[in-house]
Amino acid sequence: MVIIVRTDLNMGKGKIAVQVAHAAVSLVLNILNSNNNEWKKWLSEWLDEGQTKIVVKVQNLEELNKRYEEAIKLNVPAVIIQDAGKTQLQPGTITCLGIGPAPSEIVDKITGDLKLL
Amino acid sequence: MVIIVRTDLNMGKGKIAVQVAHAAVSLVLNILNSNNNEWKKWLSEWLDEGQTKIVVKVQNLEELNKRYEEAIKLNVPAVIIQDAGKTQLQPGTITCLGIGPAPSEIVDKITGDLKLL
Repeated sequence: MVIIVRTDLNMGKGKIAVQVAHAAVSLVLNILNSNNNEWKKWLSEWLDEGQTKIVVKVQNLEELNKRYEEAIKLNVPAVIIQDAGKTQLQPGTITCLGIGPAPSEIVDKITGDLKLL
Repeated sequence: MVIIVRTDLNMGKGKIAVQVAHAAVSLVLNILNSNNNEWKKWLSEWLDEGQTKIVVKVQNLEELNKRYEEAIKLNVPAVIIQDAGKTQLQPGTITCLGIGPAPSEIVDKITGDLKLL
């Protein structure tokens, strides 16, 4: 699982952690509630292997949206997270994008060039 | 849901985000896999209300363990997260503690005095 965080919003570390956790929980629940057996297999393997998560960064929303489109094209689980906007940000601001879990050779096609946060 | 992070480990923001996400996913899956109907009701309400997460801090492991014991006493979902230790930390280092989701009047008894990260 890879979570892509926007750096241009200048979120604090607590705020970032909340957004990333929101993405991770949403991905897992979306897969459990889906009928996609391949995704469920990937989820199960990921849990067995200790649920590895990698947090990377993009500089703006355009970059984030581009990765989202690539994930959809490759049929990988993906979820865009919007902030509730109670603190720091305007309501509905897109803060991060969660991708996976999926085999790393697939996820790498989408996020392999992005740097760690 | 409240996630309590140790500040004495000097983790970077990406590392913190991964640990917090690990706690959030683990809490949700533990509850789904449990037979505790009260916990499942709390989880369902929390999801309906937008899965609010709060990240707070403690200065050391002793403080974290104290909160864990309080959560267990109050029969609130709680999970201790240990780092896999591939980067930055020794394997098995306890990094954070996830609590909830549970009604805020109960969670406040455990974490209400802790400051936001």
